[in-house]
Amino acid sequence: MEDTFSLIKDTLRYSVNTWNPRFLDKLYAGTNPIGVIAELVLAVLNNNGHVYHCSPVVSLMEVQVTRATARLLGMGEQASGLFCPGGSASNLLAMVTARNRLFPTIKTEGYFPRPMHPNATYGTLTVFTSTHSHYSIAKSAQVLGLGLKHVIKVPTDKEGRMDVDQLEQRMQASVDRGETPFFINATSGTTVMGAFDPLDRMAKVARQFGCWLHADGSWGGSAIFSEQVQKTNCFKGSQLVDSFTMNPHKLLGVPLQCSMLLAKEGHGLFAEANSLQADYLFHGNEYDLGAGTIGCGRRPDALKVFLAWKFYGQQGLGKRVDRAIATTKALTDHLRQRPGFHLVQEPPFVQVCFWYLPEHLDWQRWRRDGSYDSKVSQVTRSLHEKVNQSGRFLVDRAPLVDQPDFFRLVINAPTVRLDRDLIPLLDLIETTAKDMTWSL
Amino acid sequence: MEDTFSLIKDTLRYSVNTWNPRFLDKLYAGTNPIGVIAELVLAVLNNNGHVYHCSPVVSLMEVQVTRATARLLGMGEQASGLFCPGGSASNLLAMVTARNRLFPTIKTEGYFPRPMHPNATYGTLTVFTSTHSHYSIAKSAQVLGLGLKHVIKVPTDKEGRMDVDQLEQRMQASVDRGETPFFINATSGTTVMGAFDPLDRMAKVARQFGCWLHADGSWGGSAIFSEQVQKTNCFKGSQLVDSFTMNPHKLLGVPLQCSMLLAKEGHGLFAEANSLQADYLFHGNEYDLGAGTIGCGRRPDALKVFLAWKFYGQQGLGKRVDRAIATTKALTDHLRQRPGFHLVQEPPFVQVCFWYLPEHLDWQRWRRDGSYDSKVSQVTRSLHEKVNQSGRFLVDRAPLVDQPDFFRLVINAPTVRLDRDLIPLLDLIETTAKDMTWSL
Repeated sequence: MEDTFSLIKDTLRYSVNTWNPRFLDKLYAGTNPIGVIAELVLAVLNNNGHVYHCSPVVSLMEVQVTRATARLLGMGEQASGLFCPGGSASNLLAMVTARNRLFPTIKTEGYFPRPMHPNATYGTLTVFTSTHSHYSIAKSAQVLGLGLKHVIKVPTDKEGRMDVDQLEQRMQASVDRGETPFFINATSGTTVMGAFDPLDRMAKVARQFGCWLHADGSWGGSAIFSEQVQKTNCFKGSQLVDSFTMNPHKLLGVPLQCSMLLAKEGHGLFAEANSLQADYLFHGNEYDLGAGTIGCGRRPDALKVFLAWKFYGQQGLGKRVDRAIATTKALTDHLRQRPGFHLVQEPPFVQVCFWYLPEHLDWQRWRRDGSYDSKVSQVTRSLHEKVNQSGRFLVDRAPLVDQPDFFRLVINAPTVRLDRDLIPLLDLIETTAKDMTWSL
Repeated sequence: MEDTFSLIKDTLRYSVNTWNPRFLDKLYAGTNPIGVIAELVLAVLNNNGHVYHCSPVVSLMEVQVTRATARLLGMGEQASGLFCPGGSASNLLAMVTARNRLFPTIKTEGYFPRPMHPNATYGTLTVFTSTHSHYSIAKSAQVLGLGLKHVIKVPTDKEGRMDVDQLEQRMQASVDRGETPFFINATSGTTVMGAFDPLDRMAKVARQFGCWLHADGSWGGSAIFSEQVQKTNCFKGSQLVDSFTMNPHKLLGVPLQCSMLLAKEGHGLFAEANSLQADYLFHGNEYDLGAGTIGCGRRPDALKVFLAWKFYGQQGLGKRVDRAIATTKALTDHLRQRPGFHLVQEPPFVQVCFWYLPEHLDWQRWRRDGSYDSKVSQVTRSLHEKVNQSGRFLVDRAPLVDQPDFFRLVINAPTVRLDRDLIPLLDLIETTAKDMTWSL
């Protein structure tokens, strides 16, 4: 007992403290306080949300939470969904469901497209997603056996949103090649920059080609809780998507893991598209939610959102988002004034991406000899390493299509403060750069 | 706050209490006591096991736990693995990994087998699993686009173990049809009866056909912790499997979810077979375990096994298994003597499957008019419903190939007692049957 206790103390001591407001590295942070209580309730219950009769309360919570969230997005009275073990799992379930719904023979017969199979009702299936989208979309297509080369990456505009004209052209080109575009992924809050794809215009294209429109709102989806965000264009067209992924474990501070896949047609869609006959487990109850998943046993994560929603209210959750947006704006305003710091772009959401370029390094020469991008990446990597090694902050760096590596700070936890946390970080980057001997 | 507290109380009150020794319905039950503490530690940490630098301690625990478990199975010094969100997810990852490893072009080009694609190095891929195996094997094949009809179900012997001669014949027939058998699933502890497929003989067949051998030990795998079980034939040949699924959240009472996929080649295999370029997240550390999964963010469930293992020791965990086996044997001995109760078969593990047939019902007539199976199923269903409605027990019923529905009790929690819990259950079944008016 003594040993275990000291082991737990060591685990806590040497682990990364995600509750610290200076943990700015990822799209999650410490939990909202009710989160720990919610996890404790789950641990004590040890319920499994696959069949209703063993988890009546949490299964109903799951349907209620997904229904209420889908309603926020305007997805209609029928909409509801399922919780999945993470955003990637939600996206994978969306893609499998879309495929099985549009081409039901694949479930039994397998994926044998035209022209190889002359009687197939579909050609090689193609998936469309933006160059800024999360890699789980490509991974899902890979799992489904579609092949990464049939995941067509659509360029974005300067703000990082999918270019819908390009989408339409590429889909037409795919059709012209005899392929069958079937799945368009819109990203609501891209991983690196935080851009929101235009759902309304994408829905029009999806309809035109008879495609499934999925929105991966793993990151940004939870912003729908904010009334302020609701007034923007971020979710314009959300009532038109077929499925929507949202991870309250990110922006809302619900404990990891907590992801939901919402469907316009409701949670029954998943069972219809995916279930097998497993009579020993499922005895035909519509709240046997496991039937619609790729898995079997399930952690009833809905309880964590249910409790947070009841405790903070929609307004309370929305304010958490608003606070993050306000802090982001304050940091951006500050950065714009501060010498040496260069924003990658105006943040569309709550990530702040920037380079720090020490004045004494010879940018002009790097530009002339064409080594600018790789040298700037080297500067970022060196600084990033030193900052994290200081033990005072944990921040991330990222590359993006055609851009040298930059710093990415995620303003997530409601405790992050400009004066106390963010300005000291920028100071540290600046002094670190000045103290370093650069051999570039 | 007051409201939330009363909501939590209601949730606890109206949920199924899986800690009750009379919860005999599923392959999990309440947790081992350290389990609740382990979940609390996870909640407080809110770490994400996808990249090492954000979860150093729990990522190393994951490698250590999977390495030590694989060693118990004799899988070799290189073996280790990953935790997945449930046994189905582990099985899916095993199948994707096997496919990508054996036919790497599928990852990029997609699944286009011979004869449709004349240059393919493989024909239609086929999967082999027993008729008693878990439905997640078929579901995985469905997700991969292989088609359910290419999941070839191999019959079992009387004890519910895969018939290896039949396996060999069916694989040869598949090859003769121009298909490519690539994945054999052995079940170590079948869901309904608890049978262990003969791994050693299956490994021989797998090698002969150049197939991946996976063992789905979601249920029975954890029995390897028992020295008593180690002396039996249950795991004979486990050193020969390519991958192995084990769910400590079942037999060992670790909280839900807790599943691992072990690989002979070690956890690096998964990254090699499955990773995409996601430079913004993965910066090349071999302990960035998320790279090898289908998902991205991950709950670090390894901590729960790590703590249980340290606290109870291998012996303590093994004794939990032994106790379940002993209680199962006691119940079986009792049932064999008790009029009206008929074992479906001698339990190979810790599930007890039986029918209760009230004496006054006219079995002979049902036999004569051929309605025996459906009438017996009706009797089981009616009794099952009444027993659960009593609120005193939660038990399950199940069908199995060519058998009328029967009761299935899972002896899992170490607190289940023959005299206090199981005999009163049999009494209840008996008196319920006598009190009912049967119109069959």
